[in-house]
Formats: sequence, C-alpha cells, structure tokens
Amino acid sequence: MIKIAVMGYGVVGSGTVEVFYKNHSNISAKIGDDIDIKYILDLRDFDDSPYKDKFIKDFGLILNDPEISVVAEVIGGLNPAYNFVKSLLEAGKSVVTSNKELVAEKGAELLQIAREKNVNFFFEASVGGGIPIIRPLHHCLSANEIDEIAGILNGTTNFILTKMINDGMEFDDALALAQKLGYAERDPSADVDGHDACRKICILASLSFGKHIYPEKVHTEGITKITLQDVQYCSSFGGAVKLIGWAKKIDDKAAVMVCPAFISNESQLASVNDVFNAILVRGDATGDVVFYGKGAGKLPTASAVVSDIIMAAKMRDNSKSLYWNSSEDEFTVDHSTLYNKFYLRLICKNKEKVLSIAEEMWGKLKILHREGEEDNEAAFITDKINEEKFKEDCRIISGDAEIKGVIRVLDY
Amino acid sequence: MIKIAVMGYGVVGSGTVEVFYKNHSNISAKIGDDIDIKYILDLRDFDDSPYKDKFIKDFGLILNDPEISVVAEVIGGLNPAYNFVKSLLEAGKSVVTSNKELVAEKGAELLQIAREKNVNFFFEASVGGGIPIIRPLHHCLSANEIDEIAGILNGTTNFILTKMINDGMEFDDALALAQKLGYAERDPSADVDGHDACRKICILASLSFGKHIYPEKVHTEGITKITLQDVQYCSSFGGAVKLIGWAKKIDDKAAVMVCPAFISNESQLASVNDVFNAILVRGDATGDVVFYGKGAGKLPTASAVVSDIIMAAKMRDNSKSLYWNSSEDEFTVDHSTLYNKFYLRLICKNKEKVLSIAEEMWGKLKILHREGEEDNEAAFITDKINEEKFKEDCRIISGDAEIKGVIRVLDY
Repeated sequence: MIKIAVMGYGVVGSGTVEVFYKNHSNISAKIGDDIDIKYILDLRDFDDSPYKDKFIKDFGLILNDPEISVVAEVIGGLNPAYNFVKSLLEAGKSVVTSNKELVAEKGAELLQIAREKNVNFFFEASVGGGIPIIRPLHHCLSANEIDEIAGILNGTTNFILTKMINDGMEFDDALALAQKLGYAERDPSADVDGHDACRKICILASLSFGKHIYPEKVHTEGITKITLQDVQYCSSFGGAVKLIGWAKKIDDKAAVMVCPAFISNESQLASVNDVFNAILVRGDATGDVVFYGKGAGKLPTASAVVSDIIMAAKMRDNSKSLYWNSSEDEFTVDHSTLYNKFYLRLICKNKEKVLSIAEEMWGKLKILHREGEEDNEAAFITDKINEEKFKEDCRIISGDAEIKGVIRVLDY
Repeated sequence: MIKIAVMGYGVVGSGTVEVFYKNHSNISAKIGDDIDIKYILDLRDFDDSPYKDKFIKDFGLILNDPEISVVAEVIGGLNPAYNFVKSLLEAGKSVVTSNKELVAEKGAELLQIAREKNVNFFFEASVGGGIPIIRPLHHCLSANEIDEIAGILNGTTNFILTKMINDGMEFDDALALAQKLGYAERDPSADVDGHDACRKICILASLSFGKHIYPEKVHTEGITKITLQDVQYCSSFGGAVKLIGWAKKIDDKAAVMVCPAFISNESQLASVNDVFNAILVRGDATGDVVFYGKGAGKLPTASAVVSDIIMAAKMRDNSKSLYWNSSEDEFTVDHSTLYNKFYLRLICKNKEKVLSIAEEMWGKLKILHREGEEDNEAAFITDKINEEKFKEDCRIISGDAEIKGVIRVLDY
C-alpha cells in the first residue's frame, strides 16, 4: 500500500483528489499496488467534504510520517511551497507539483536534491495543463537535439487576443470578458504582462537545453499595448497576433523571450484559439512536432498531477528521471544581441519622409494596409535587424513620427 | 557497455544508425552507460558503408549473443519479423520496432512474452513517425479514461486529399504526384485503401482500451472514390475531407473505423495538411489533446526508434511497461450497429422526388450546393442514422438516383 499526501485544496488540489478517486481502481492497477491519499494539507476547514478525515493543517505530520512516499504540492507560489518541497525531498519523499513559479525559479536546485536523495521531482502540470509535454520532451524526443521551442503558453492572453481578432473587441473589453468568465484573475498582470508564459518557457527551455534558464534573465513583453489596428494589420499580412514564449539554442547559449508576435496563418500556432495552448518543438531529426490542448482548467491540470503521482509511485528511484543543471549567468544571451523582423505602426508628420528614413535604416520594407487607415498612418515589416540597433533607430524616427505599435514577426 | 543490434538497413534502419551515431555521446549520457551498435542485420551487402564491419546476414548471431540486450527491428512486414522478434523476446532481449503491421497483428502476444520474460517491447515509431504518441498515451494520460481517439494517420493520403482540396487536382493526378515525390509506393493500395491507417488506429485503440483490436475486425474504407465534386461540397459545408482512423469506447466494447470524413474547419484536424499527421485524444479529464507533426520520413521515424532504444536500455525490466490484453472476437463492435451522419451526392431522375424520399428516410437534410452543380445533382447531409439501415435505404433510393458519393460526417 502506497500512502500519499496532497498539499493545497484549491482548484487544482480539489481536482487532483477528484480525479484520483474517480479513477482509483485503474490507478492502483497501473501502479501494480494499492494507493491512497492519507493527508490533505490546507489551512482552511472543509467539514462538508467526503474526505474531511484526511484534512490536516500541520505540514510536520506529512514530513515526519515514514508511510508517506509521494507528495503532491499544489499550493502554488514560492512561499511556503519552496521550503515544504525542499524539506520533503531532503527527507527522501518524491514530490510532484503543478507550481510553475517553483520550478522556474528553483528547478535546478530541487532536481539536484531529488537526485542526491534518489527520489523523483516531477512537474508535468506546470506547463500546458493537461497537455503532455514535459515527459514527451524528456523521453520521446531524447534521440533529438532540440533546437527550438515556441509556444502559446497562456490561455488567458490567447483568449483576449482571439476576441480582439475574431470579434473586433478592444483589449480592455476582452480582458473584462475574460475576467467575467473566470479565465482571468482580478489582478491580471501575471497573465497579460507575460510573466506566466515566461515561467513556462523557462521550464521547457531548461529541460530542452539541460541548463536552468532563470525568468529574470528573459526579456518579457505582454499584450497590454496591442491595439485593434495592430490586429487588423496582422490580418492583412496574413497572420494572427499571438503571445509567444520561445527559446532557441544559439551555439552554446540560449536565446529566450516572451513577446507578442505576428505569426503567419501557415503556422500551426496561428489557428490555436481561445484558451487553448500549443507548444511547437523543433528537433533536428523529428522536424516540427506540436502539442495542443487546454492549457489550464481544474481537471486537465489535475489529471497531469495524478499521472505524475502514478509515475512517482511506480518509479521508486531517480535513475531515469528528469534533470537539468544550474547555470551561470551568461547561459541566457542578452536579447539586445538578437536579430528579429519587426512590424511597426506610425503616425507620421510626413509619411514619405518617414518611409524613406525607415527604408534606409531597415532595408526593403513590406508595406501593410488596413481598411480605414489614416492618411498619415504607415505600417510595415522590416528585414531582420539587431534588437539594440532597432531600439536606437526607433528613437531617431520618433522625431518624425509617433510610434503606435511595435510587434516582432516570428517564423513558426 | 550496452550492445545492441539493428535488424534491417532500409530507409528507417539506415536512419536509425545515422541518428544513433549523430547523437551518440548524448545518448550514452542519457542512459548513464556507454552504448554501441554491435550488429546490423541485412541480406544485402553495404561494402561502402562506414559501418561495414557490423553487417551480418545470420540472425542467429544476434539471437545467441549474450552481449546483445536490445534489438531494433526495422525490417517491416510480418515475415520474418514476427519470428525474429518472438525469438528475441523469448531469449530475454528487449525489442523496439517501427513495424506497425507486426504490432497491429501480434501486439498482445508479443507484449505477453515480453512481460513473462521481464523485458521490454516498445513501438513508438509504429504510429505517427516522429510524433511522440505511444508513450504520452500510456504515461501522461494515465490518470484519464480515454474515451475516444481520432487521427489523420497516413501522410500519403493526406497529401493527396490536400492537393485535391487546395489545388483542385483529380485523385489520379494527385496520386501520380505523390508517387513522383516519393510519398507513395508504386503499389499505393496499403495507403489509399486505408490499411496503413487501420493498423495505426488498431495500435492506438489497443493501448487506450487495454485490449487488442485486430485490423480484420475494423471496417476500413480508403479514399479512391473521393471526387473533386465531393471535395467542393465539403468546402461549402465549411470543412475538409480527411481520411480518419477513429476509435470510441461504447460501454465495454470498442467501435473502430477507418473512413474518409467531412471534418468541420473548426476542428484542429481540418487544418492538418500535406504529409502531416495529427492525433486527437479525448480524455475524461484532459478534454481534447492533439499531437501534430510529420507522420513519416526517414529521420523522424528513426528518432522515434532511437528514443525507444534509449528507454529500453535505461529500463532493464518490464515493470513499468506498456501492455494490453488479447481480446475475444466480440470486443470490437460490428460497424453495422453504429450511428453516423452521412454526406450523399446523387444524380437524380427527379430531384424533388429523391429529396422527398431522402427526407422521409433520413430526417431533416442539410442541403449543400457547389459552383457549377448539375441541374439533376443533389447533395446533402443526413441526421445520425444506423449504418445498416442507411445501406438498405441507399439501395431503395438508387431506384431513383445514381449514388455518386457517400462520405461520413464526423465530429472531431
């Protein structure tokens, strides 16, 4: 009999308990041993719950119970999750988690402790909700060198952008609708500013490249500045604006960024709508492989937690486990050294002059048009250009034009 | 040091050796032990190959060499692959294969021997080429009940249908182009008649439902009867014609079929073009998850074989392995008992009369139109109707009209 604990009884935690008991007999069969939840840790009371006898408030009970071999951490955030998980691994218990912040910030350290203690630290639910991505990345693509990953990693922002694109809603209205439907928090900044996507691309890139990518090293832009005009120009370009987390191996280093981007309609990522997520993995042998599904939600995320519980209960030692190393500061390249194509939208004092300056600085421009565009409005796509130079060039051109929109154009 | 053998040096076999040596140091690192190919079995001579010292023609050398612990079978077909693989498993060696015919016909038996001998039998490369699907299905969705799977599983037929849809090519011309580009064999029947897709959906369904689904029990239709007119009507319906392998749990039995189908443009499967494959998995907790990528090709398939070699070399025992049971004949339900929507295209003696008979038999019809349709042509979509009754009804209506096209309409 395997005894486990679930820490946190919020959305994901209660879903985990629900999925666990719904498929209980199958789960035991898959593990080849009986398994049960002994404790559920939460500071709140749940007197009406059918599991009320399992609730505890003292973490020490889990830590010091030798019967407990696997713990699911679904509290979220760094504090107290980090100290809890660290103590559990050090005490020789396997931990599975849905906590992307924890893995993105402390992954290398926790994986190292798990390896030393010969236990497992799994986090399938931390990226892509119910989409299996961590384990396929690790196992099935193990014969590939992974060169590049790009994903629509945040369902809230994808919902907002879809509403702007398909229904012509303004950003603020689309955000309000997302909040009304429960897709966005009252404080939506973690989503709309790109921090959630940043944590997820850090986890995927760390796993793919074998070294920890820290969120604070990753240039991150959100979608709050995207306007309907930008969305219209993107349509005329033959694409869709998406918030993309991407990572690319450049020699021995990693380029990682989160930014809104023009994505061609030819791309599998362009047709990913509403709260769906998709992750494109570019391997040297497989070519492009895409994983698609609901990136969030109670039951999808809970099912990923439960599948990790099953794996942790089956694989009692760490020998085949996920792993990446900690990394020095220089592993993530500064984004200012990168080259990208840019879309620009400008309100010009003198349009001809502005376009001539632009063409001189940025090579042959691809001019875009939209229905109802202003006389003094110019929109175009540049050649590939160094990010630092582009920033300086924008300063130059802003003497002759007001810059209303700047969005990268990515090839996925 | 782990010693392995590769049986078969055709497209996938030579790709396997190439991917293996290209990523050799990484592969050893991932396994945590040095690994090398000791034998390559092929009846032909490869005197110019850099690996020429490894080539052998005698299977017995592999079977009787106690140093060999893992063997990759990439010969294809049932004979001699089946006897080879069976002997190897019985001799206590793990086997990985790309051979869909072998797994679809003999999977349950071989998995049973592998379990008895405590070795592994893996076949990631048998479905979806380089798309990781077998292992994600098994592991990551292990907390789900899988209710349904539907996939575009054959790249050749998807290429042909894409050319018909996007370029207005006739079936024969599109097939000739596929042959010219090397996507289709000179004898294309395994692809265009649906047998290849049938083997793949059998493997996916067996794994998902835990019991062997035999190809001969699966109603299988190919794409040879699809015309440009059908494709045009499908566009006007707002969808695309795709060859779909699908499997659905109905109570304790499985409904499995391969057939061309109208798929709504809303579906993630509709935008899967050219030689790409996509597999949609519907789980009770995750909802729809889609895996997308190149379903064939030397390097993608080889990389799946190599990732299985890595797993087999890491996991020396069978305790966490894939498995399904053999099944009695009645596990797969007869397709004549199923209910589906149908698209029909008819050349009528009297169109009004035919539509009135049709509506009487099949409920409210959704009438379709296309540019340049004949005066006496009728095309429509029926309600859900029993397959057996529909077949009889078609016999009735064929007194008043010539049936030119019949295609199911599926909801994925």
